[in-house]
Amino acid sequence: MSGLFVVFEGGDGVGKSTQQRLLAERLTEAGIAQLTTRQPGGTPAGATIRSILLDPATGDLAPKAEALLYAADKAQHVHEVVRPALARGEVVVCDRYVDSLLAYQGAGRVLSSSEVAEISDWATDGLLPDLTVLLDLDPVRGVADIVAKDRIEAAGADFHQRVREGFLSLAGADPGRYLVLPARDDRSAIAGVVWRRVRELLSERPGNFGS
Amino acid sequence: MSGLFVVFEGGDGVGKSTQQRLLAERLTEAGIAQLTTRQPGGTPAGATIRSILLDPATGDLAPKAEALLYAADKAQHVHEVVRPALARGEVVVCDRYVDSLLAYQGAGRVLSSSEVAEISDWATDGLLPDLTVLLDLDPVRGVADIVAKDRIEAAGADFHQRVREGFLSLAGADPGRYLVLPARDDRSAIAGVVWRRVRELLSERPGNFGS
Repeated sequence: MSGLFVVFEGGDGVGKSTQQRLLAERLTEAGIAQLTTRQPGGTPAGATIRSILLDPATGDLAPKAEALLYAADKAQHVHEVVRPALARGEVVVCDRYVDSLLAYQGAGRVLSSSEVAEISDWATDGLLPDLTVLLDLDPVRGVADIVAKDRIEAAGADFHQRVREGFLSLAGADPGRYLVLPARDDRSAIAGVVWRRVRELLSERPGNFGS
Repeated sequence: MSGLFVVFEGGDGVGKSTQQRLLAERLTEAGIAQLTTRQPGGTPAGATIRSILLDPATGDLAPKAEALLYAADKAQHVHEVVRPALARGEVVVCDRYVDSLLAYQGAGRVLSSSEVAEISDWATDGLLPDLTVLLDLDPVRGVADIVAKDRIEAAGADFHQRVREGFLSLAGADPGRYLVLPARDDRSAIAGVVWRRVRELLSERPGNFGS
């Protein structure tokens, strides 16, 4: 038995959690076991790590400390949540994964991208999603929609532009594993495209999902 | 200006915090600026990381998550506390540093020692102590002295024996940077030996400490 690992990626405010919920609903309606989770914060230890990362009260985190905290969250989450669910044959639907770490850290331009990628790969034992849905949005419009700003979101527009480029670059490097969709499209339309791709991937695993 | 970085290492219950305090007192009496700190937990973010690491309520941490959390604490601590103090010319007296991570993770025998060393080196930008005082103790006696046990201390005697061997092995690999002292010796005698070595090191830095 081996499940399917689906990740939603993109900047803040692009609709990742909405699409995650819509996919989970379709899976449940189809009688397919799914697990909805997120990074950072998908485990009890991760929830505390998330609070360090996102709470403005933390103050300035050293770039390496920040990257290592994200990596620690991933290591715990993959170990405690993702791999066990995949081993049970479930579809894991995750809000953010490794690409977020790489895109945000890369946009910060402080750390070596290859070093961050190496640590991230070590943390996750190299686990890659079967499908990453990148909800792509011009960050100027995306950020404007957000009322509450946390520490990450408070960064400038140039930064968010580099984050977007980082995501697109990761998708471009391994297109078979990605679905890049304009986040401004109708949310039902997006959900339909995602569902078709997920069904395709499930149909390639008939032993697991009986389709 | 460049200060002096002194670290106390060793298992639980060997007297690190006592010796740290005694050294800090001697430095203060001698009119030398010192900063007393520790890992993990020497920064606000680190205090939260420390609570994740040591609180039994955390449950099972994945070995890689644990190592990455220690590394994150070190990255933040070196960036926020240790390097600025050294830049001010102070003597930094730290309870635990990189050797604890290597000795404890090595004793766990789950992770590759070279990988943990690489991450630790990355986290600290390769900052090494000028002097590491290793308070060496047979772990069977050391553990027996401890009443309150936290998550780490609750591990078995074999584990603590391997931790001890890990510390001794690190000291043996770079003896010029270490002072290995039997932790059962009289604490005033230990403090005297430490103080003599620190004074020697300070005397080699006359520009900084005016001796």
